[in-house]
Amino acid sequence: MEYQFSDRVKALKPSAIREILKNSSAPGIIPLSAGNPAPDAFPYEAIRKVSAQLLEDTPIEALQYGVTEGYAPLREHLLGYMKKKHQVGTENDDILITSGAQQVMDLLTKTLLNEGDTVLCEAPSFIGSLNTFRSYRAKLVGIPMEEDGMDMACLEKALETEKNVKYLYTIPNFQNPSGITMSFEKRKKVYELCQKHGVMILEDNPYGDLRFAGEDVPSIKSLDTEGIVMYAGSFSKVVSPGMRVGYAIGPRAVLQKMVVCKQGEDVHSNMWAQIVCHRFMTGFDYEAHLQNLRDIYSRKSAVLLSAMEEHFRPLITWSHFEGGLFAWCTLPEGTDMLGFVKRAMERKACVVPGTAFLTDETEPCRSFRINFSTPTDEQLREGVKILGETAKAM
Amino acid sequence: MEYQFSDRVKALKPSAIREILKNSSAPGIIPLSAGNPAPDAFPYEAIRKVSAQLLEDTPIEALQYGVTEGYAPLREHLLGYMKKKHQVGTENDDILITSGAQQVMDLLTKTLLNEGDTVLCEAPSFIGSLNTFRSYRAKLVGIPMEEDGMDMACLEKALETEKNVKYLYTIPNFQNPSGITMSFEKRKKVYELCQKHGVMILEDNPYGDLRFAGEDVPSIKSLDTEGIVMYAGSFSKVVSPGMRVGYAIGPRAVLQKMVVCKQGEDVHSNMWAQIVCHRFMTGFDYEAHLQNLRDIYSRKSAVLLSAMEEHFRPLITWSHFEGGLFAWCTLPEGTDMLGFVKRAMERKACVVPGTAFLTDETEPCRSFRINFSTPTDEQLREGVKILGETAKAM
Repeated sequence: MEYQFSDRVKALKPSAIREILKNSSAPGIIPLSAGNPAPDAFPYEAIRKVSAQLLEDTPIEALQYGVTEGYAPLREHLLGYMKKKHQVGTENDDILITSGAQQVMDLLTKTLLNEGDTVLCEAPSFIGSLNTFRSYRAKLVGIPMEEDGMDMACLEKALETEKNVKYLYTIPNFQNPSGITMSFEKRKKVYELCQKHGVMILEDNPYGDLRFAGEDVPSIKSLDTEGIVMYAGSFSKVVSPGMRVGYAIGPRAVLQKMVVCKQGEDVHSNMWAQIVCHRFMTGFDYEAHLQNLRDIYSRKSAVLLSAMEEHFRPLITWSHFEGGLFAWCTLPEGTDMLGFVKRAMERKACVVPGTAFLTDETEPCRSFRINFSTPTDEQLREGVKILGETAKAM
Repeated sequence: MEYQFSDRVKALKPSAIREILKNSSAPGIIPLSAGNPAPDAFPYEAIRKVSAQLLEDTPIEALQYGVTEGYAPLREHLLGYMKKKHQVGTENDDILITSGAQQVMDLLTKTLLNEGDTVLCEAPSFIGSLNTFRSYRAKLVGIPMEEDGMDMACLEKALETEKNVKYLYTIPNFQNPSGITMSFEKRKKVYELCQKHGVMILEDNPYGDLRFAGEDVPSIKSLDTEGIVMYAGSFSKVVSPGMRVGYAIGPRAVLQKMVVCKQGEDVHSNMWAQIVCHRFMTGFDYEAHLQNLRDIYSRKSAVLLSAMEEHFRPLITWSHFEGGLFAWCTLPEGTDMLGFVKRAMERKACVVPGTAFLTDETEPCRSFRINFSTPTDEQLREGVKILGETAKAM
């Protein structure tokens, strides 16, 4: 049979990058291209304990159907926690538990976007989210990044000239891939501009708890008096990505539509994982756990920074980062970045070419992304050494 | 802010039925409207054991990111099991693990349908799937059901006259809501007609293992020499719905597109649940477990049948069913079915009005659906008694 695919699926182009990275999980590869939490960041003991306990005392709750909105005790606890700790959530907001934060991107897009409508995003931005937006045939318009977040003049111009802009997508803390944190001044400006133009903001904050330097910056959601911000949170980087538990906190009117969409996608999220997250947050010292994660990543980032100082100077530069899992590195002018990534890959050091994170993969780009959470210290040192040598050889 | 929703979300109409059922989980309600497995059908002990074991011996696998296609050992085992036991799967087929079978409906629709394209379905059919198709703005065309499955003349006519038909959706075993099992003759005819018209078949089989009378009928997928059938399986009714594990077995070319769509929706399904399903299937006597479920539902259906014999005759009739979780009951001509459901609800007996399962909720319908897996035996008897009395009083 000759299959007839939908226009949205036909529009998904094969990626040159996928070709480069297709061997990234082969044996012997140094995995600087991933985004996995460090294996020692998982709270194994606690999860074993709460899992055994919940399967003993509330097995029906864990195994039976649940409601689409999510496990009520987790929803309630998160709303209180996020309000108290991060000033996230107003009386017009509600919370929806999702199957990972990726589903927040999917559901908001499904709820707001018609084909051809515009999504503004940071350039570069997280490829997973961009692909979700693309699957709804969004027009993606990238706003160039500066050291403290998006270029405000470009954002303002885009809001004025682009048609049918439905929302702005931003990862304000330790952005993936750039590592950049948006300044508080820019957060206020972003909120003000979007409010003026009647455009929603999708604030994606998977790494916010992983700060190991500098001071926390208030979220954009904490400024949200008008109900224009949908906040996406996730347990993937702070408890476990395999559990697939994320959440959206935002205007009730929008969330209610997202609930209907979620019902059609997966009915509700895995119950066991929702209960584990609730019991882990409430039955253990959650703040001490977060501090432990920050210590782990602080140490690993120091290993990376020291290796980059040794092997990258002066050819390869990198952006300043105060948390998260990624470093954004840039090759000298005139370097063939894709050629560099291929040559490094031949020597088993695997990084993601910066073009993967652009709204248009064919735009010029001299940057690449290094992840420091997945590789061991030894792999980090060896990988950076190979990257430095590869740059020098070119 | 005034929110602008997408056309697909704006098109979702408020349902009269939702209004009737909104109190269906209030205390004291007799839940004949649900579709939950019986609480004693869950293999608690086995799940406790495999869960503790897997969190001990492969915690990283359970907690770390997985691949979108699903947990490899589960995929491999299921492919072999379904091939051997049910002749499901060819050399051109592959398998995708999904977050419940609902996600198979979603992903296939996303992969094949443009707005306005047609989906043929049984009339009545499962409301959850119909709503998923609606969320992609499908045109739904219902094929009336007979005692042995769809009316073949209507199906043939629809295939000849409807434009852009992308697939036929069917639940061939103990259909939800009608309880009807499609005969082997009709399965062959459905396959032949769809093949002739170049239309795919989405075969949804959540209840197939729950046969407690009669003989198994080969699946449509087992006839699939041309790669036109996407088979949807699920652990929801045989292990646990709260785990949200389903799967699609179908043509590799179509599944590959569904994988891309799934990546944008939830990246991958909960790992713990996938590993639990694999270890439960391989480490325990799975066939004995299925036999135990059949015994449970055979007994509960007998309680229902005996209560219906006592309280429904001669006013309310019901369709013959040999498995599954539902009985489809029909009121005498001239009865106001929605009025009946409301009056029964006032007396705490909650059933689903048949119109909920139609492609057009406003069509005339004298039927309602009873679920016999969720209520206790006592609730079944009491509920049926109330329904009988309500019918007599009208």
